[in-house]
Amino acid sequence: MSSSFPTIGILGGGQLGRMSAMAALRIGFGVRTLSPVSSPSVEGIGQAHVGDWTDRSVLDRFVSRCDVITVESEWAPAERAEEVAAERIPMYPTGQTLHTIRHKGRQKNALHRAGIPVSDYACCSMLEDAKRAVSAFGFPVLFKKFEGSYDGYGNATIRTPGDMKPAWDRLAAEDGLLVEAFVPFRRELAIIVVRSPSGVHVTYPVVHTIQRDHRCHAVLAPAPLPATVTTRVEELARRAADTVGAVGLLGVELFEHEDGSILINELAPRPHNTGHYTIEACHTSQFENHVRSVAGWPLGDASLRVPAAAMVNILGTRTGKAETKGMREAMAVCGASIHIYGKQEVRPRRKMGHVTVTAATTEEALARAEEAAGYIHL
Amino acid sequence: MSSSFPTIGILGGGQLGRMSAMAALRIGFGVRTLSPVSSPSVEGIGQAHVGDWTDRSVLDRFVSRCDVITVESEWAPAERAEEVAAERIPMYPTGQTLHTIRHKGRQKNALHRAGIPVSDYACCSMLEDAKRAVSAFGFPVLFKKFEGSYDGYGNATIRTPGDMKPAWDRLAAEDGLLVEAFVPFRRELAIIVVRSPSGVHVTYPVVHTIQRDHRCHAVLAPAPLPATVTTRVEELARRAADTVGAVGLLGVELFEHEDGSILINELAPRPHNTGHYTIEACHTSQFENHVRSVAGWPLGDASLRVPAAAMVNILGTRTGKAETKGMREAMAVCGASIHIYGKQEVRPRRKMGHVTVTAATTEEALARAEEAAGYIHL
Repeated sequence: MSSSFPTIGILGGGQLGRMSAMAALRIGFGVRTLSPVSSPSVEGIGQAHVGDWTDRSVLDRFVSRCDVITVESEWAPAERAEEVAAERIPMYPTGQTLHTIRHKGRQKNALHRAGIPVSDYACCSMLEDAKRAVSAFGFPVLFKKFEGSYDGYGNATIRTPGDMKPAWDRLAAEDGLLVEAFVPFRRELAIIVVRSPSGVHVTYPVVHTIQRDHRCHAVLAPAPLPATVTTRVEELARRAADTVGAVGLLGVELFEHEDGSILINELAPRPHNTGHYTIEACHTSQFENHVRSVAGWPLGDASLRVPAAAMVNILGTRTGKAETKGMREAMAVCGASIHIYGKQEVRPRRKMGHVTVTAATTEEALARAEEAAGYIHL
Repeated sequence: MSSSFPTIGILGGGQLGRMSAMAALRIGFGVRTLSPVSSPSVEGIGQAHVGDWTDRSVLDRFVSRCDVITVESEWAPAERAEEVAAERIPMYPTGQTLHTIRHKGRQKNALHRAGIPVSDYACCSMLEDAKRAVSAFGFPVLFKKFEGSYDGYGNATIRTPGDMKPAWDRLAAEDGLLVEAFVPFRRELAIIVVRSPSGVHVTYPVVHTIQRDHRCHAVLAPAPLPATVTTRVEELARRAADTVGAVGLLGVELFEHEDGSILINELAPRPHNTGHYTIEACHTSQFENHVRSVAGWPLGDASLRVPAAAMVNILGTRTGKAETKGMREAMAVCGASIHIYGKQEVRPRRKMGHVTVTAATTEEALARAEEAAGYIHL
């Protein structure tokens, strides 16, 4: 077979697009990104296009220069892009997969119908439905926006009857909102599964994720689990990927109960924050496997090349122009791999970068990653 | 301290500039490259400028947008750049270091005067001098161009008196050429030493390099050496770095004799082909440490994060436009990290990419890296 290296088009210009682009460039692919506003995270990495990505002529020009397109986020207007791409080049994940995952009600329904354990939930189109669900589940429950909720945004914890009306008014869309029973989990886990267009799966190690303020704070790989639990998580992830027809990466967040039983909390059809550690720790990074899979190339070995790793996010703590504060101190921490996403503007809790450390144990890796990340205040 | 991320300017647009640029971007630096001709290896990675890098006004514009500049190769016209940069921003390695290393005679003299063991050599300005040196050393000897010889280009092995005149006519410059005694080495070793502007050293593991046709074919890390030899190699590398006033990376190629004694063969003041394995195998890659050091930032941990690694080069085997031939087969080799440099044109023996594998042993890593690299014929 004689052909030139393909060009991958990425809809989106954040850190996931940035790191996917870097992985694609490394293996010789061309890279183009398209985002509606100027995105410093992808400027100077591949060809960064800025344009209205809902505009047919913009998408048409973009698609004509790519061999495959993918999305950085489930919020990209990918159905429009898929229309334009149709019969010319593939787009993965498909619009259908994004449609299912983007809406928390549809996502839960799909998993539930496939027999995959999820928390008790109800898709409520009126406040009265929500009240009935709360009676059935008991306090506390979560109200979640069907679309657009992430990292704690668009969610409310309902502890008393009086919490319901204000939360409903704030979060309900035309089709209502999602009511979810509170899960008294022991631990939050995550796994990334890669699925090729022909349905081949590769799974990354199961990781333990530590949340702070509804945001991923740290990831420990591997999670210290009995083999039976690991196998169960892998099996659920593969089934979830099949259920939503994922092609490319699927990030799967799970809850582990005290009794060791597992349920799926949420899916993301793209590279995932809980997989950033794979750049240093695995034979093939999540970003490279995303590129390989959407391009229809063979999937890479997702296993660890080190005993253990930890990743800690670097979040914004103020509003303003990003600075290098603490970078030198962080770089002096032995073995800290620092990733800065090139964002020019910092905002409180904005994901600005991350630190990964690989070591003999997750405890050691976490201690050093925390130390390095702790110095950095961009 | 409150400042924005620095921009590093790289003179050169080949694979070393490409991988340095990627490392710089990852830690948040801005990147600009300058090369005299369009360089696909750096296009779309940072801001790639094309211009006459001996032209003062081109250099002036380039320097004005950077906070520090470095070179990808000892052949970059860095003295001119240093003049332009002077009193505005630092340039590392300095023109003085490049001046010393670029000329094989000056390089040998510097090492020899510092008491660092090198092979017997003579800087010969006339054929008669060369003949005298050959008499002293005995056949075979090497004739080497003082400047511009690399990877076997610009060298000749002299086995008989009749070989001398034609080789002299081909290789001698105005100041003659270098005559080097043949070294009956057991093994070729290499080490990378990083030196900060303030003289702090970090050394990478000593590696075993396997040459084919005067080119680096494979690198095994770590080289299986007694601790005394490792210590000796590290010490020589640090002394060499001090001797030439290196700032940034210094690639050091060495010969190991049957009796375990060591001598330095050659220096390169930049990221080095024998250090590509560090991207996957070490806590900080050679490219990141080059960037950190020339920017005056703290140096990173250069130790292995895996038990062992092997790197195999992917060289061109034909002339024409680069293709993806064998990429799929190579990607199916378990654990192969494939790097393609984005060069559009392939030529016989041109460095087109490399494969790194990390594993429990160098033997296992080499077998898989050879397999993957063997499939790829760009």
